[in-house]
Amino acid sequence: MSNNIIHHAHELSKMKRSSIKNQKPCVLWFTGLSGSGKSTIANALEIELHNRGKHTYLLDGDTVRLGLNKGLGFSDADRIENIRRIAEVSKLFIDAGLIVLTAFISPFEKDRKQVRDLLEDEFIEVFIDTPLVVCEQRDPKGLYIKARKGEIKNFTGIDSPYEAPKQAELHIYNDKDSIENVVNKILAYLESKGYLDA
Amino acid sequence: MSNNIIHHAHELSKMKRSSIKNQKPCVLWFTGLSGSGKSTIANALEIELHNRGKHTYLLDGDTVRLGLNKGLGFSDADRIENIRRIAEVSKLFIDAGLIVLTAFISPFEKDRKQVRDLLEDEFIEVFIDTPLVVCEQRDPKGLYIKARKGEIKNFTGIDSPYEAPKQAELHIYNDKDSIENVVNKILAYLESKGYLDA
Repeated sequence: MSNNIIHHAHELSKMKRSSIKNQKPCVLWFTGLSGSGKSTIANALEIELHNRGKHTYLLDGDTVRLGLNKGLGFSDADRIENIRRIAEVSKLFIDAGLIVLTAFISPFEKDRKQVRDLLEDEFIEVFIDTPLVVCEQRDPKGLYIKARKGEIKNFTGIDSPYEAPKQAELHIYNDKDSIENVVNKILAYLESKGYLDA
Repeated sequence: MSNNIIHHAHELSKMKRSSIKNQKPCVLWFTGLSGSGKSTIANALEIELHNRGKHTYLLDGDTVRLGLNKGLGFSDADRIENIRRIAEVSKLFIDAGLIVLTAFISPFEKDRKQVRDLLEDEFIEVFIDTPLVVCEQRDPKGLYIKARKGEIKNFTGIDSPYEAPKQAELHIYNDKDSIENVVNKILAYLESKGYLDA
């Protein structure tokens, strides 16, 4: 008992870690179809937050695929483990006081619910809602063409469902708006909720 | 090709992320026997770094055992995966511009070598060298007693080896020095190498 008390008295708290950053830590969880613009918006938002002196980190396929989540495939079990690890890492970054941005398709309600349960009120779901037809026209990585040909299986929107969020904190229609406008909308939300203050 | 260039032009770099933190990111990898004082020293050092306005994060059993590394046991494969994930998460935190402190026994040279290879010159090995007899007398968690009784198997120092680092950046003899002195030694090292400047 006394051991526990001594232990905790010598630990740095999340509050103290974030206090020198003048912000309230949280995770902006971008979800949406491949090609919907998640990464583009997350990157643009991160730069804008950085310009305002905020401390951020962006987790996306590029940051975890070849590292932490190396070896995970596309089976149901691996897909769940993939999202679970991203959520747990996000939690560590929140604990470190940062504003985290994640950009993964994360198509299943059940998986996103698990993340929400883990991160509680520090979880901000950002639904990037771009019509499939638009995503498929953009096809920035040429993945839709391959999926239509059957060269990729279980591709979200083609032969695997995307379960749209029903109660996302932010619902962004991304087929007609400019990136700048979308970023400003998200910033306005963060400001109104006090995430950008100490 | 042009797609890649556009992509990267809109990304925030590690250098930019750490620039607003006035520090050079790195990992202080504490290694040593159970009870050697790794966590105690790491916690005291983190508070001192925080007091100097530095942005840090501490990874230890408490932060990863019930979260990211939940489900991993003590088999050889799990032990390697445990250290691998900690190293990969450390790399993400470095990328975010933080000074990371890790406190794990990490008894095997081969595993630590893998971490060093991954993190390259951002890896600082801190060997907390406390004689086994001292650690066993302290026995803060009552684990040595259980290991001696055979209630815990493969316990480092008892029935599993601790491979002492041969070229640690910092070799700390922790049986006669005060925590304050040890912390000051590590701070002096970080200062001399420029980690505490922008």
